[in-house]
Amino acid sequence: MTARAMILFAHGARAASWAAPFERLRGLTQARLPDLDVSLAFLELMSPRLPERVDQLVAQGVADIALVPVFLGQGGHVLRDLPLMVEELKVKYPALRITVATAVGESPEVLNAMADYCAAALAPTP
Amino acid sequence: MTARAMILFAHGARAASWAAPFERLRGLTQARLPDLDVSLAFLELMSPRLPERVDQLVAQGVADIALVPVFLGQGGHVLRDLPLMVEELKVKYPALRITVATAVGESPEVLNAMADYCAAALAPTP
Repeated sequence: MTARAMILFAHGARAASWAAPFERLRGLTQARLPDLDVSLAFLELMSPRLPERVDQLVAQGVADIALVPVFLGQGGHVLRDLPLMVEELKVKYPALRITVATAVGESPEVLNAMADYCAAALAPTP
Repeated sequence: MTARAMILFAHGARAASWAAPFERLRGLTQARLPDLDVSLAFLELMSPRLPERVDQLVAQGVADIALVPVFLGQGGHVLRDLPLMVEELKVKYPALRITVATAVGESPEVLNAMADYCAAALAPTP
């Protein structure tokens, strides 16, 4: 059996508080996938960065990584920076399998939940 | 009756494709609030910027704006840049009511929908 892991890939920010919903998302996803290691990794400003996290997982014997970009829009970070990093990781670890999911913002269910939230955010007329 | 509007406030990016899920979110929210003008405004790199959009709405007679930050993490943009912009707008338009919701990433329902998506993104073992 191949050891598998999931990485939730997020942007990162200077304010430590920024990561809070991503930590909650990690816990919720981990609860849905109890047999898998689910961890966060960041593009910049926060640790671990994606290549560092992959190094750690490979050192632990993980041979199959599912990567989910936790981004709403697919801009340069998802369309250019991430594929470049994944290519470099594949060169570094030829035996490693890495699958990259579409960004969470492309999910109709996520967008519907956000629309519900926005509609509910309408304050009552004073 | 006070004319009201909702602004979904997002970061903006260089790639035009980045805005696609935000446009979809705008449509979904507009469908839930058919009596309200729901529009997007951006912090940077895309138009309209937030102050520009507020100018337009005030010129149309809107006196009450519900602003929802479409951000996952609450970092400097939501905690510092946005309140500064809102303060400037309140100075410019003293009669205007602006309410600012918590960022969408704080919604448990949004996080649950994202966790469902992440768990489903696990590719089958080849």
